[in-house]
Amino acid sequence: MADLVGNLLVAQSGGPTAVINASVAGVILAAGRHMNVVDEIYGGLNGIYGILREELIDLQDEKQAAIEGLKHTPAAALGTCRYKIDYKKNAEQAAKDMDRLFQVFEAHNIRYFFYAGGNDSQDTSNKIHEEAQRRGWDMRVIGVPKTIDNDLPFTDHTPGYGSVIKYNATTVMEIALDVSSMATDAGSCCIIEVMGRAAGWIAAGTVLAKREQLDAPHIILLPEVPFEKDAFIAQVKKEIEEHQFCVVVVGEGLKDQNGDEIGADKTKKDAFGHAVLSGAAETLKELVENEVNLKTRTVKLGYAQRAAAHHASEQDVIEATACGEAAVKAAMEGKSGFMVTLKRTSNSPYEWSTGLHPLGEIANVEHLIPREWISEDGWLPNEKFVEYAHPLIEGELHINEDGGLPSYVHLEKVRVEKKLEALPEQND
Amino acid sequence: MADLVGNLLVAQSGGPTAVINASVAGVILAAGRHMNVVDEIYGGLNGIYGILREELIDLQDEKQAAIEGLKHTPAAALGTCRYKIDYKKNAEQAAKDMDRLFQVFEAHNIRYFFYAGGNDSQDTSNKIHEEAQRRGWDMRVIGVPKTIDNDLPFTDHTPGYGSVIKYNATTVMEIALDVSSMATDAGSCCIIEVMGRAAGWIAAGTVLAKREQLDAPHIILLPEVPFEKDAFIAQVKKEIEEHQFCVVVVGEGLKDQNGDEIGADKTKKDAFGHAVLSGAAETLKELVENEVNLKTRTVKLGYAQRAAAHHASEQDVIEATACGEAAVKAAMEGKSGFMVTLKRTSNSPYEWSTGLHPLGEIANVEHLIPREWISEDGWLPNEKFVEYAHPLIEGELHINEDGGLPSYVHLEKVRVEKKLEALPEQND
Repeated sequence: MADLVGNLLVAQSGGPTAVINASVAGVILAAGRHMNVVDEIYGGLNGIYGILREELIDLQDEKQAAIEGLKHTPAAALGTCRYKIDYKKNAEQAAKDMDRLFQVFEAHNIRYFFYAGGNDSQDTSNKIHEEAQRRGWDMRVIGVPKTIDNDLPFTDHTPGYGSVIKYNATTVMEIALDVSSMATDAGSCCIIEVMGRAAGWIAAGTVLAKREQLDAPHIILLPEVPFEKDAFIAQVKKEIEEHQFCVVVVGEGLKDQNGDEIGADKTKKDAFGHAVLSGAAETLKELVENEVNLKTRTVKLGYAQRAAAHHASEQDVIEATACGEAAVKAAMEGKSGFMVTLKRTSNSPYEWSTGLHPLGEIANVEHLIPREWISEDGWLPNEKFVEYAHPLIEGELHINEDGGLPSYVHLEKVRVEKKLEALPEQND
Repeated sequence: MADLVGNLLVAQSGGPTAVINASVAGVILAAGRHMNVVDEIYGGLNGIYGILREELIDLQDEKQAAIEGLKHTPAAALGTCRYKIDYKKNAEQAAKDMDRLFQVFEAHNIRYFFYAGGNDSQDTSNKIHEEAQRRGWDMRVIGVPKTIDNDLPFTDHTPGYGSVIKYNATTVMEIALDVSSMATDAGSCCIIEVMGRAAGWIAAGTVLAKREQLDAPHIILLPEVPFEKDAFIAQVKKEIEEHQFCVVVVGEGLKDQNGDEIGADKTKKDAFGHAVLSGAAETLKELVENEVNLKTRTVKLGYAQRAAAHHASEQDVIEATACGEAAVKAAMEGKSGFMVTLKRTSNSPYEWSTGLHPLGEIANVEHLIPREWISEDGWLPNEKFVEYAHPLIEGELHINEDGGLPSYVHLEKVRVEKKLEALPEQND
């Protein structure tokens, strides 16, 4: 196999995580070991949205300390986007976008392209890989997995998932200490809403806070298990009888038997007659207060949970970095059209390696929690889930602080000179 | 002064914090240096609510490691309550409660009483101190300050405050990285609701995340500054124009010009016709989405923020412990009827000591943010506030982990044998 000499481009896509930058650091660090074939290491700003606009930066102009610091800096340091190349929705625009992308790739002699993202982003990578082959543009495209949702198929889990469940499980444990210490008092039910619209992996992960039978969380409501109001109320009453307080975790996408999200209550209207989207936790709170007559508080972690690098999982950081490195390794071996996967080779002790899976098989397959990992009554994930999730939160990180707050890096973002005409405004 | 020999009782009251257990550890550790006069070190479960029920535990039966571990364990390890001795509301019950408390004190020869709590708890301590004098029961009563709200008077700040603002400022910083990295995309406004009903100290503390002019938070809505809808909308538009995203922090008790909390919108009704209490963040989100047409996300940290010992301030832990120790020292010096205070003797470098203030002057005085610490336009605390708050979040703690989650202690709670008849049930 002849060496492919040219430039490397890495970009990020989709919702950020605590460790997506660690994957970029992995790509950059591994690329640095192949400077015989890699001329320049570029970053694309805001994923393909920015690449279409030729917004490239020179990552070799960044300080070495900043590249190392990326491993512990949350969110997408290169910026991200949700922009898709969608032939079904608008074939003309998609074809135009694809043309433009390859103008950029050719203008900057991009021969290695790495895209870190979730399901949609892997689909984009696949389309770019296929288009390169069609055009005869010799470029190796490897997808790097990323998503707190843990819903990518063909990988044991996704980088980003371990950190979000470590933070959320810690939060549930801390809230449970708080609520239980006030158990003679008001506020003995607390409902914590976490992310996860279709899959309940994130909500399920908080079960790791439950070390003993009476520990919180007491009820975890998963989108995989249709919500049944009466059964839920009965279960809350049972928990309160047993230990005077009840901590409920709910995935934001919890659905009723009709498949409707319970957080989107169409019977409620605001002053203007609009439906009020109060969210799953608020809806459940009203239910508990009305039906159990129990003072109830809510917590909605929202973006906080996916950005909480101050309490990330060391294992997750290591794996996210390794995924970036493995992507470069695969490309250097001449491979293209694959996503890096994580393979578990042993549970106890936890052992893992990276693998590769064809990009074409990733898109539009959604990986849900197996039903046999959830207790028969549906209220909690069972020991099979715990065995799976537990190794992913291990490891104590030390995050440097600056003035009492975590010291996160900001890239200098030195722009690569543009070589093409700007996109017409209407493309925005 | 003759030595007062007898037993010591420590209890906790009000909403828990990340460091209220550190104050209890301080009391226990300091008491251990006075075992010539202190016979037994007791803990009262659930504050005076439990003491009325003679629910005492023997703290000398706890492992030494557990006492040390209390410094880093959130919530109230002894349990807490909001129960008050309220002569105004029910003089008969209050007199009965006071009688019962002194039966317990006498039955267990309590000669030293330490109560860690906020405004109401200091009031309780004062009533107990005065009653002891009236009855001629030689007992020394010292209040230990505690509240995330930072609204106690006569102390520079309160233990618990530094930790809540360190966690909240970190969260704001992390969310800002997340939101700004998606700025070309949906979700470019994020509204973060934090605790603080009357005073805005907690919301104000998130300004520490703002290191540079463009950094978040961009707007902090304080209960001290009446909310004005049009001005707020205009300010959000201005921030979006300047940097494409906007992070707003709002104290849960934000009020409009009529003094009504904006989170309690009486115009909204649920399916049963009840007013919907959607909270300040949700109310603002609807406003921004309707008036600025900007995709907006909310985060409601709730109990998570006051229990987040995994990211507590080391300075706060040190001061909370010192407050417990100072309480014992004052009692050993023959003092009673005081609350321990924190005194700042220098800002840069930050230097501090503990002091004492008469309990009788603490109750019902609420300490708000001085207007001259808030920018003229009211959107952010100014450099005077930053100078005040900054030293309180300093210090990197190392929290031991167990299986990937913080290792918090649980007390054995070995009960002290009861000597009185049980309270009649109707007292509950």
